Amino acid sequence: MPAAAEFDSLRVVLVATRNPLNIGAVARAMSNFGFLHLRVVNPYQAAFREARSAVGASALLASAEEYKSVAQAVADCALVIGTTAIHHRELQHPLRRLEHGARLIRKQLGSSRVALLFGSEKRGLSNEDLSHCHWLMSVPTCEEHLSMNLGQAVAVCLYELVRNPKAVWPIGKAPPATADEVERITVALLGVLRTSGYMKTHSAASIEQKVRRLVRRLQLQAADAEVWLGMLRQILWKVRSGK
Amino acid sequence: MPAAAEFDSLRVVLVATRNPLNIGAVARAMSNFGFLHLRVVNPYQAAFREARSAVGASALLASAEEYKSVAQAVADCALVIGTTAIHHRELQHPLRRLEHGARLIRKQLGSSRVALLFGSEKRGLSNEDLSHCHWLMSVPTCEEHLSMNLGQAVAVCLYELVRNPKAVWPIGKAPPATADEVERITVALLGVLRTSGYMKTHSAASIEQKVRRLVRRLQLQAADAEVWLGMLRQILWKVRSGK
Repeated sequence: MPAAAEFDSLRVVLVATRNPLNIGAVARAMSNFGFLHLRVVNPYQAAFREARSAVGASALLASAEEYKSVAQAVADCALVIGTTAIHHRELQHPLRRLEHGARLIRKQLGSSRVALLFGSEKRGLSNEDLSHCHWLMSVPTCEEHLSMNLGQAVAVCLYELVRNPKAVWPIGKAPPATADEVERITVALLGVLRTSGYMKTHSAASIEQKVRRLVRRLQLQAADAEVWLGMLRQILWKVRSGK
Repeated sequence: MPAAAEFDSLRVVLVATRNPLNIGAVARAMSNFGFLHLRVVNPYQAAFREARSAVGASALLASAEEYKSVAQAVADCALVIGTTAIHHRELQHPLRRLEHGARLIRKQLGSSRVALLFGSEKRGLSNEDLSHCHWLMSVPTCEEHLSMNLGQAVAVCLYELVRNPKAVWPIGKAPPATADEVERITVALLGVLRTSGYMKTHSAASIEQKVRRLVRRLQLQAADAEVWLGMLRQILWKVRSGK
């Protein structure tokens, strides 16, 4: 998955983040999904320093931009979205589920910069922070466990932005075995069953058809057919020689 | 979002996890999305103990089941899925993108238990672990940054299982202002512009229509119309009294 040009228009904005592990986790999720531009507003300074100096800290983290206020951090963006864990409080903004909100963000990314704000671990975004937002977005979590870990919330939001139900990977479906291969397996299995005495204990009249249907329900793959046939022939040889 | 009955059929299985923070993060994501059954296979014992005894450790973590082998951990499941960060290595299994794989898992959850396996932070699932799986699933990450943090990977996978693009929240769209309200605002604004001398410097013939179109492009909400009208009337009073 190449980083689409429009993803370059997203600014992930962390407001007052306190935990360096979380800043690092956010940077990692951004790298995973191809978003490169991180902005931090009034981070807990020690946390930001620690995150940046961590072993393996990414170029993304090194180039993160620091701002003194939300207003400055979103100044060049045409759409500003706040994230919140709270689904039903007295929100002064329209609140959209992630599935819907991400669709609107993707549309906007084609033509202008979009800021996606995440608040501090403890309190989320303040009402002052939220007043800079056009609307709010929330991950659909359980009523009893609304609040997500910051790094996980960012990962889920960015995943929804890149998800593409129509994309396929080149690992194709294994081709199914042909009717001829399946029938040869059936015949070999019947041979083994006959020699083993299984057929005697069952009604011989219907057993062949039963086994034929049984083998067809296995939905054998072409690549596996030869292996099964080899196994069955070896077994047949053994049970015959042992008679 | 209530925990759907079918989500009760999922078993999240962590194999050889080493970091207690990651075990805790997995448990949190599971709680967020309404999945309650965690299984661990050969965890690094100190990590599992530490995660369980952490402050605020959830009931979910306390009831996590521990197994000695993958075979035992998935024994009661009819479908076993392995997750992998590697999209294109010589995989012996069909590999599905999360968007597609989650759809198949949801279908299966209606009728039987499904195990979703996550490997260790460093190495992922071993080939021995993978041999217990029906197929593999991967989050569509960037080629250059394939590997996700464990807690984030679990969060993204579980989110995809619960996501519902058709679900709506009861926070309705704010009703738009009526044509009458919009026209009263237009008239008030025109009054202010006239009194302020703005009209004189522009062609009076077209200005009214221009302002009318301008105000209509604001897509005013009903709840905001009165506020704007109040502001404009106050301004009009001030500019008139100041003449």
